[in-house]
Amino acid sequence: MKSGLKQVETTPALKRWKLIIAYDGTGFAGWQRQKNGLAVQELIETAAGKLFGIPVTVHGASRTDSGVHAIGQCAHFDQPLDSRTFPSKELLLGLNAHLPPQIRVLRASRVRPDFHSRFQALGKRYEYRILNSRVLPPHDYQRAWQVSLPLDVQKMREAAAVLVGTHDFLAFSAFSKDRRENTVRTIHDIRIVGRGEKISVIVEGDGFLYRMVRSIAGSLVRVGLGRESVEWVGERLRGRDRLPGVVTAPPDGLYLIRVFYPVARGADCSPR
Amino acid sequence: MKSGLKQVETTPALKRWKLIIAYDGTGFAGWQRQKNGLAVQELIETAAGKLFGIPVTVHGASRTDSGVHAIGQCAHFDQPLDSRTFPSKELLLGLNAHLPPQIRVLRASRVRPDFHSRFQALGKRYEYRILNSRVLPPHDYQRAWQVSLPLDVQKMREAAAVLVGTHDFLAFSAFSKDRRENTVRTIHDIRIVGRGEKISVIVEGDGFLYRMVRSIAGSLVRVGLGRESVEWVGERLRGRDRLPGVVTAPPDGLYLIRVFYPVARGADCSPR
Repeated sequence: MKSGLKQVETTPALKRWKLIIAYDGTGFAGWQRQKNGLAVQELIETAAGKLFGIPVTVHGASRTDSGVHAIGQCAHFDQPLDSRTFPSKELLLGLNAHLPPQIRVLRASRVRPDFHSRFQALGKRYEYRILNSRVLPPHDYQRAWQVSLPLDVQKMREAAAVLVGTHDFLAFSAFSKDRRENTVRTIHDIRIVGRGEKISVIVEGDGFLYRMVRSIAGSLVRVGLGRESVEWVGERLRGRDRLPGVVTAPPDGLYLIRVFYPVARGADCSPR
Repeated sequence: MKSGLKQVETTPALKRWKLIIAYDGTGFAGWQRQKNGLAVQELIETAAGKLFGIPVTVHGASRTDSGVHAIGQCAHFDQPLDSRTFPSKELLLGLNAHLPPQIRVLRASRVRPDFHSRFQALGKRYEYRILNSRVLPPHDYQRAWQVSLPLDVQKMREAAAVLVGTHDFLAFSAFSKDRRENTVRTIHDIRIVGRGEKISVIVEGDGFLYRMVRSIAGSLVRVGLGRESVEWVGERLRGRDRLPGVVTAPPDGLYLIRVFYPVARGADCSPR
């Protein structure tokens, strides 16, 4: 037996790329590849496939819903083995050349082969944009949630403070109560920024349940309108009772702003 | 002769309305009613016609081109005689109910019957938005002009200063040289505001020739790119020579911001 002399297969080095992607969610079926409707993931996979001449699988950090926007979605993919290595500028231009203008790769960079856009994300920042006005300006159409009646931003801030911290957010998700999944998440911060009729709810947390940000935005608006008290938010949180559709804000106002990673991982996934 | 006793027809009081209108110019054939393509004017006339049950003619202050946006277009129309008078809130909601979300009436108010949105305009403010970046973010698609190479904003400011004042702007228009029209206009101010990759050219003047703002923006960008000198702008102005298409910026970046009127006329036509 020629021990120690087994044939060693030198695995060709895996070439993993990280992408920062922005999209206007209007007209797309969300991030994830769907049977019905065109998904952003699918279009990026097609673009990458055209560039390398071989199908490519792209993994995104967040499965944004249909109509939801992204300013800084983060994704990764492995370059097909033996394919030509592009300088990152060329890869970026090449992918964009095969994408519709509603989707843009803002940055492309090589990362360590153990980087994973979804599993290694430490947290995310979302922004929910509200237009508090009787008339929705045309340039905000499908890009903000129009709330016609006046909002009490101070009350919304008080209600937001109740949600900050580590809680079971089942009541603020589209999950059913029987679902076994862990529904505990930590919200690090909720800021409500108001400039005239433009009001933004900026939420940062370690992770978000299905429709959690839209459910938070919808609930804060109910408080801002005076339809519910600040206490109601805490009661819902403790009661773990999902309220149906009424409290889920529409997708139009939701933006995935940024995904955070450990610094050592090549980290920064900010859009700029 | 029963002098002085001619039959006096008491003309019913003319009810004139002033509208402040915003629109996303993408997909419209501009402001003015066209044979081909859907114009904003036409859609507002149709909406008003539905509201009053009788066709209505709407006059706008500025004939914005196809693809050009408005934040504060000003228009007026006369309510059909004997038609019901709406409170202004109701008129505004009624018009918007019959308009696509890409066009919104922001304000409606009764004005004196001698108010004229076009002939009494003292001046206008336009903004031309440039995105100075190799990648055009999806939310700026069709809403800004993407200029990939770096712009020298200081040089653009120097060139803009040459244009401020009263000049014959024939060279900065789409008119032919033989046209007899008066092509002298006064530009009160050009400000160039840069925030990172977003650069806005804000032009205020007493009136603008056909494609004048886009021609100014296009010329300033040529200077900003270093393709032409600051002096070239002054030479063009004096030479009255039109340069073909090369210097006309695309419609995507142009916004009619505001129309100014004499204070006594009910004046303020700001979008808010």
